[in-house]
Amino acid sequence: MQLLSDLRVVFNEYLESQKFTQKPDELYQPNNYFLGMGGKRIRPVLVLLGSHLYNQQYQTVLPASIAIEYFHNFSLIHDDIMDNAPLRRGQTTVHEKYGNNTAILSGDALLVFAYKYISKVPEQHLKEVLEIFTQTAIEVCEGQQLDMNFETQEVVTEEEYIEMICKKTSVVIAAGLKIGAIIGGAPVSDTEALYQYAIHLGLAFQIQDDILDCYGNEELVGKQPGGDIIQNKKTLLLIRAKREEEIVKSQELEQILNDTSIQNKEKIKATLKIFDKHGILASVENTRDKYIASAISYLDKTSLSTEKKKILLQLIDYLVRRDY
Amino acid sequence: MQLLSDLRVVFNEYLESQKFTQKPDELYQPNNYFLGMGGKRIRPVLVLLGSHLYNQQYQTVLPASIAIEYFHNFSLIHDDIMDNAPLRRGQTTVHEKYGNNTAILSGDALLVFAYKYISKVPEQHLKEVLEIFTQTAIEVCEGQQLDMNFETQEVVTEEEYIEMICKKTSVVIAAGLKIGAIIGGAPVSDTEALYQYAIHLGLAFQIQDDILDCYGNEELVGKQPGGDIIQNKKTLLLIRAKREEEIVKSQELEQILNDTSIQNKEKIKATLKIFDKHGILASVENTRDKYIASAISYLDKTSLSTEKKKILLQLIDYLVRRDY
Repeated sequence: MQLLSDLRVVFNEYLESQKFTQKPDELYQPNNYFLGMGGKRIRPVLVLLGSHLYNQQYQTVLPASIAIEYFHNFSLIHDDIMDNAPLRRGQTTVHEKYGNNTAILSGDALLVFAYKYISKVPEQHLKEVLEIFTQTAIEVCEGQQLDMNFETQEVVTEEEYIEMICKKTSVVIAAGLKIGAIIGGAPVSDTEALYQYAIHLGLAFQIQDDILDCYGNEELVGKQPGGDIIQNKKTLLLIRAKREEEIVKSQELEQILNDTSIQNKEKIKATLKIFDKHGILASVENTRDKYIASAISYLDKTSLSTEKKKILLQLIDYLVRRDY
Repeated sequence: MQLLSDLRVVFNEYLESQKFTQKPDELYQPNNYFLGMGGKRIRPVLVLLGSHLYNQQYQTVLPASIAIEYFHNFSLIHDDIMDNAPLRRGQTTVHEKYGNNTAILSGDALLVFAYKYISKVPEQHLKEVLEIFTQTAIEVCEGQQLDMNFETQEVVTEEEYIEMICKKTSVVIAAGLKIGAIIGGAPVSDTEALYQYAIHLGLAFQIQDDILDCYGNEELVGKQPGGDIIQNKKTLLLIRAKREEEIVKSQELEQILNDTSIQNKEKIKATLKIFDKHGILASVENTRDKYIASAISYLDKTSLSTEKKKILLQLIDYLVRRDY
């Protein structure tokens, strides 16, 4: 999408201009390092897009876009410590490179700086934006806690799973788009509808992420498929498979999950075979498409022109790529 | 001080009424546990006091007072992880009781909730209070980083030390008093002067803390003296002793600091003997008293009545208790 690429250029230029130059270096350099890793910048670009739908001036919305990006990166830095992850986007994580203490404290500082940029939001919108941003941050913490709970939780229901991915992924995307729209001058009914559009888009995006982890083309996705399967991660595919009556009866899935001696390649192959036999992929794709349909339905509740709505329809295709 | 006790009762009642009841428990219970440990609540009480000087209604200032207390507790929870501290106020620290991951994430949530309460500040003061609060939080992160740097830094100058304790201790006290005064309706010149008063009071308070750690009466202070000496902690006493020409020449202090086989009791005794011989205590007390004099001088720049100023003079005595 050309517009998204253009907005990404605008954002990246601003981000670069705001690089940390403060002292002490030990606190700020790790954040420059992590922010410099790149990434698709989806969240801050959506802030700019939300504003762009109502107003073509970016100046006033740039601080909010950086607040969302800083917040997202703060949560990644801390999540990486908790997950004990050595790599992120193929590069060394902050705690791995600088130690846990630095990763904790630099992450804290990044969260506080996110609020510094929120405080630059035009005063007539400050209270509302601050409340949305803070509520979102709370939900992200809750989502991360739920995700950690799931690791040891015997049974995770679909409702619990959807709540978790909503809090961990959707709310930041939705808050970004909504905050952008508010600053751009959107009417209240539009900002609410856009929020719901992005919540449902975020759910579809995350479910697609689960699907790609199992079925993605390595070259297109950029990582070896099967990581979630190897880790017994409770994705929607696994949750749904585990409640399939026939799968439960045969116990074949349980055996694979509990087999600690099985080779990774073998485990992936055997799991996918069960998924395929019981139509798990099609069933999960169906859920994903329902969320996409919901997202689209919220567009009709906005006052946006057909042309603007088209941008948001293209965004769905861009974020939930269905060729794999 | 009766007024401070009264304000503490007001604050503690409010804090109790705001206890976390949200889900998931794994995220929120550790914060209830830590906040429930008690403590003197100096920082939130100063928020109430700042307002009280101009306005006897507490309703509008209570959310800001809890924001300051949440922020302070967030920073303690994360500092305890970084310092690997098993105990705080004689009780098990959060990371020790619940694990590092929980301490990171619950601390994050507590910081975000601090902002939630900041967002409840009356709208005419919101932008200013948000900016002060955020700048303070940034400085506290910087102060913690400086403190960690000092552990491995060969030479720490007095200027560096004062910057560190200013950022780690003074700014929260000063921001609390200032924010309270702003919400209470103080004129700008008063809020600035009160901020400076509290910055200098905070420095005196921290230096006194260093002194008490060496010379405090165990029953009055509530902990065995000498902890800082045992850890070679670069307090103002040690920094000053290390630059005393005669002490440098004799190398006796260096020998004690580098002696890994020395008994704790012996180490404390030998260090204090050097301090005493060279008048280190008196010299550091003199610095502390200069900061107290500065704090007092700022009171004259306020529009406060003599009676109100008396409260702030008593506060100095209360916080920088000089009987030990």
